[in-house]
Amino acid sequence: MAGNSYGNLFKLTTFGESHGVAIGGIIDGCPPGITLDFEAIQKEMNRRKPGQSAIVTQRKEPDEVKFLSGIFEGKTTGTPIGFVIENANQKSHDYSHIKDSYRPSHADYVYDKKYGFRDYRGGGRSSARETASRVVAGAIAKQVLKDIKIHAFTSSVGDIFIDKPYQDLDFSNIESNDVRCPDSATAEKMIKRIKQIRKEGDTIGGTITCVLQNVPIGLGEPVFDKLHAELGKAMLSINAVKGFEYGSGFCGAKMKGSEHNDQYNSDGTTKTNLSGGIQGGISNGMDIYFRVAFKPVATLIQKYETINKEGEKVEMQGKGRHDPCVVPRAVPIVEAMAALVLADFWLLNKMY
Amino acid sequence: MAGNSYGNLFKLTTFGESHGVAIGGIIDGCPPGITLDFEAIQKEMNRRKPGQSAIVTQRKEPDEVKFLSGIFEGKTTGTPIGFVIENANQKSHDYSHIKDSYRPSHADYVYDKKYGFRDYRGGGRSSARETASRVVAGAIAKQVLKDIKIHAFTSSVGDIFIDKPYQDLDFSNIESNDVRCPDSATAEKMIKRIKQIRKEGDTIGGTITCVLQNVPIGLGEPVFDKLHAELGKAMLSINAVKGFEYGSGFCGAKMKGSEHNDQYNSDGTTKTNLSGGIQGGISNGMDIYFRVAFKPVATLIQKYETINKEGEKVEMQGKGRHDPCVVPRAVPIVEAMAALVLADFWLLNKMY
Amino acid sequence: MAGNSYGNLFKLTTFGESHGVAIGGIIDGCPPGITLDFEAIQKEMNRRKPGQSAIVTQRKEPDEVKFLSGIFEGKTTGTPIGFVIENANQKSHDYSHIKDSYRPSHADYVYDKKYGFRDYRGGGRSSARETASRVVAGAIAKQVLKDIKIHAFTSSVGDIFIDKPYQDLDFSNIESNDVRCPDSATAEKMIKRIKQIRKEGDTIGGTITCVLQNVPIGLGEPVFDKLHAELGKAMLSINAVKGFEYGSGFCGAKMKGSEHNDQYNSDGTTKTNLSGGIQGGISNGMDIYFRVAFKPVATLIQKYETINKEGEKVEMQGKGRHDPCVVPRAVPIVEAMAALVLADFWLLNKMY
Amino acid sequence: MAGNSYGNLFKLTTFGESHGVAIGGIIDGCPPGITLDFEAIQKEMNRRKPGQSAIVTQRKEPDEVKFLSGIFEGKTTGTPIGFVIENANQKSHDYSHIKDSYRPSHADYVYDKKYGFRDYRGGGRSSARETASRVVAGAIAKQVLKDIKIHAFTSSVGDIFIDKPYQDLDFSNIESNDVRCPDSATAEKMIKRIKQIRKEGDTIGGTITCVLQNVPIGLGEPVFDKLHAELGKAMLSINAVKGFEYGSGFCGAKMKGSEHNDQYNSDGTTKTNLSGGIQGGISNGMDIYFRVAFKPVATLIQKYETINKEGEKVEMQGKGRHDPCVVPRAVPIVEAMAALVLADFWLLNKMY
Repeated sequence: MAGNSYGNLFKLTTFGESHGVAIGGIIDGCPPGITLDFEAIQKEMNRRKPGQSAIVTQRKEPDEVKFLSGIFEGKTTGTPIGFVIENANQKSHDYSHIKDSYRPSHADYVYDKKYGFRDYRGGGRSSARETASRVVAGAIAKQVLKDIKIHAFTSSVGDIFIDKPYQDLDFSNIESNDVRCPDSATAEKMIKRIKQIRKEGDTIGGTITCVLQNVPIGLGEPVFDKLHAELGKAMLSINAVKGFEYGSGFCGAKMKGSEHNDQYNSDGTTKTNLSGGIQGGISNGMDIYFRVAFKPVATLIQKYETINKEGEKVEMQGKGRHDPCVVPRAVPIVEAMAALVLADFWLLNKMY
Repeated sequence: MAGNSYGNLFKLTTFGESHGVAIGGIIDGCPPGITLDFEAIQKEMNRRKPGQSAIVTQRKEPDEVKFLSGIFEGKTTGTPIGFVIENANQKSHDYSHIKDSYRPSHADYVYDKKYGFRDYRGGGRSSARETASRVVAGAIAKQVLKDIKIHAFTSSVGDIFIDKPYQDLDFSNIESNDVRCPDSATAEKMIKRIKQIRKEGDTIGGTITCVLQNVPIGLGEPVFDKLHAELGKAMLSINAVKGFEYGSGFCGAKMKGSEHNDQYNSDGTTKTNLSGGIQGGISNGMDIYFRVAFKPVATLIQKYETINKEGEKVEMQGKGRHDPCVVPRAVPIVEAMAALVLADFWLLNKMY
Repeated sequence: MAGNSYGNLFKLTTFGESHGVAIGGIIDGCPPGITLDFEAIQKEMNRRKPGQSAIVTQRKEPDEVKFLSGIFEGKTTGTPIGFVIENANQKSHDYSHIKDSYRPSHADYVYDKKYGFRDYRGGGRSSARETASRVVAGAIAKQVLKDIKIHAFTSSVGDIFIDKPYQDLDFSNIESNDVRCPDSATAEKMIKRIKQIRKEGDTIGGTITCVLQNVPIGLGEPVFDKLHAELGKAMLSINAVKGFEYGSGFCGAKMKGSEHNDQYNSDGTTKTNLSGGIQGGISNGMDIYFRVAFKPVATLIQKYETINKEGEKVEMQGKGRHDPCVVPRAVPIVEAMAALVLADFWLLNKMY
Repeated sequence: MAGNSYGNLFKLTTFGESHGVAIGGIIDGCPPGITLDFEAIQKEMNRRKPGQSAIVTQRKEPDEVKFLSGIFEGKTTGTPIGFVIENANQKSHDYSHIKDSYRPSHADYVYDKKYGFRDYRGGGRSSARETASRVVAGAIAKQVLKDIKIHAFTSSVGDIFIDKPYQDLDFSNIESNDVRCPDSATAEKMIKRIKQIRKEGDTIGGTITCVLQNVPIGLGEPVFDKLHAELGKAMLSINAVKGFEYGSGFCGAKMKGSEHNDQYNSDGTTKTNLSGGIQGGISNGMDIYFRVAFKPVATLIQKYETINKEGEKVEMQGKGRHDPCVVPRAVPIVEAMAALVLADFWLLNKMY
């Protein structure tokens, strides 16, 4: 209820503030007997971690995950997997300057109003650092799902976007550049743009497209827990996300039914896939694809004016390291959340 | 788990197929002592019901709700509110022609694959008829929320859209036309468009914008159950929805942080509201606004080719009444789901 | 959360007050494709219903269940099963005499304190009438569980008890007498006792023993959701229940480990079964057996003194029909709740 | 679903095997702004920990809890409280002798059957070591509940029992002896008995009585989530528990209604309290009291015969340290679980 758990059968609960001792979580419901690939898990962590390239925040965090339970002789036991990730950075910054003031478009103000009190260091619980725990769980979920392929990539940064359908992209290029865009020419432009934004001490938004392949037919529940409704919630729960669309998305709202309906082939596949691989909330075996919009992050390295607890105007100066564009680091988070959604429905579907 | 419940503290569970005896639901967790306005509930039902105007499906359903429990001497008792809505239409059509075939972009195929079996009459459980139960619960949730104002309206039909910010609209005009668009000039164009589409036996998509006002500060939970994540899920659970965005939405993904950050006034309100009334997943007291994309409904009154259970091609003819544009009737459903989300978080927030 | 649902995967939500229009419920998560035996369902209803024999309350309720959804051509579809049971009796009594007073050991006082308000007619939601909905769901759960056998019987009334282990009883005798005791000699004594109690306008308690056979190995979760913990909760949720023990129960607390440990046979069965078919919260394939204690019901046909809302003493006279011993009618309720627990864990176990 | 969480609004999720790196948990939903008394938490840990006295297992575990999040400047923040307790003992024993065999009345056999695989060291997840995490959460819940008093004590060991009503006992004596029995004369006999049992390498069962005082009126939900049903589940989820009764309990099943009904005083209290402080599942402001039965633990320091994975008979010898009577150490666990149940309902009740 307090919102720190995701999933029902494959359930992740996370804890931790960005500048506390450690963050971590518990994965409850992971099936037993799965031989975990720990390198693959760490690789996902590295895709999300700060300091990985020249275009992301230079904060140093090794982000090594330590498993405490639920694994025996390299295999999952079916009991809860507890894990922690230490906060290496916990004492390196001084946050007293934000203690009594509310940074614009941050959660400072609402936390104080809701809880009467907050851990102001580095955003505390509202920091995107929490998503590291999601990546751990997502990496394990991917191993549970085996044959299902999950590919997310940066599809736009500011007004620079890939102008091809995803079918024309080579997903094996995603990790070949720092911005995680599979189209090299577009990637170059994006990187250039982000470097310029960083120099300005500013930030910029972007979108991530995610494609789920080999999803078995039948995942998703028909009414409130439609597969795309859960995917939407999962994506919207990622910091800075402002929008979600799947299949034809917002473009579909401009179309006529005679254009939009996907005709069947005789094997049950469809000739087009404006449905986005989901009909009536249930996967139909076609590719599932969706797009997620990220606003620019609020922390700027610029002077700004805001208010303090007393409602007085205060002048502040953004300092330290900042993340000019959160999108490249969000790619593994989008994949992780997609994996958590699928793992949960996949387990549920065993009921049928 | 099986997806027929929404909410935790204010919880709706629904049942019913479009051509069974009745549909209905149970509202569990409605606070006690609320004097219900039954006329207001029926009014919401009438906004959703078929046959209400010339631009929606002409199927006849009185959609009268009958309450069975949880209300005593006109007031809620705090015990579950059971209700039923009879299906007047249950025997009027012959659905045997779709029994063994899969209509394109309907849920027929995936239901058969998931459950091995389906109630094929009128789409069965996948029919949007189920949303009538949501409207009942939403109408009660609105009464629980009292001071919170929820206004949804049709903001686009096909490529016709309102080109003004919502602040320039007069919400009291929403019900003044059949399409539920508060801008009269745009409404007229939309209605004309829908009538033309109906003549063609075709359908068309559109978007609904929803504005939530007077929402108290503090609703929403910080990590997975962010207020906008739940709103997103709730909207995406409505039939035919393909996208959700709130605040700056997909446009925000093109912006710079220096443009996007909302500066504070000294009273804690913000000068701009690109955040959309939510920061860090928690309401900040400003207007919450979001947009929902509806694809065109799949049922056309045209000839079409599809497959049957054996994978053989079959020629079909759409017949009977159809809904050329589902958007006007979806307006009260969007409001109902928003009310359910808010009621749930409002109750949860009493914990703090 | 508000407590009107039971189960996770096989979930029952109930509604209804004893003297409202109807009671009923929704079963969500029933597997699709099960051909329902409606006579078997009604037979279970008849075992619970008032007026079935000379030793239970003579209130007349036909207790016919009407299914509204989730069933098509006699088979479950996997969608929620909505059902209602009309309250034939709804206007026959005058309850104004209890409107403002609190009957001893009833829920009148706490309802008023909790909700500020109550439907006082016949106990409203606190009436055991609600259990009729449980019997419907339990009867369906039994059909889902097929091979699992669930046998409950009256094992004591007041200080009259069966002095044999359950293995020496013939369960096919349970329905051969009005008190549902498989030992004829004991049954006779019990019936005599209840008739005498009824004449006195008094009531008497008793116990029910329940034996679950052919339960597959592996049901139950190891920590908080142990199989016997859920069975305990399910039984304690039945009106008038004051205690639950399984396997060696309270007697086991007097024993030594060397006496209590169940030795294995080479096939994994055990020579003794003091564990009660559950080890570490998980079924081990042996018989599961437990005992449930029912206090005497509080409604007496006697004069009594109590208080009203103002805290003033008032003299009251119990009138109408009363249930001298609730135990015989509770036998099918115990079975129903056991079936619900097992169905839920049985579905969950498909995950492994 | 996988059973490692307890509670809804005040929710504990635990992880950890007895001989892994660490055990621990996450408390989600603890209200913000509570100044924690860390000494009081450790004191509860010390009451549960091994090696605390001559009559419990001599295994050495410091059982120091380390908090990782959710606390800032000594106060709870409303965000999840993550904590770990290291397993000091993790490498000290050799468990290879039980790797392939099933100890009688342990969970070895069912774990292998359910999960296909198990962490056999020290019982793994089925070890009562997991309850240390419950004690941490319970100690915090007690601080949330402030005015509510929770007193558990050993009421019997084998056939030695306190023959006085709890009202005649002085709860301040509970911690004055190793067996946690407030009646000194009985305590002495119990201790003598346990020492003798220990010498025999045997174990013995017992019961714990728990009294909850100053519980506000209104906790508990009326149908499935009755306050005593949740208390029952919570207690039955503790290792080795075989029975639960509250108020008149199993004795109540022998009584007549005219003897059992609790008459009201004019202030709403009752002259007797056979109801056990709960009516219709809802607390009525009177003392809540219940009794929990513990079987003797299965680990004996004796020779025994059992089977291995192949179903072959093997002779084994129990060795190392054992817990002759688990009851004294279970007293703080019973209190912890009672605190968790109350905290959850107390938060829920704020909804009304």
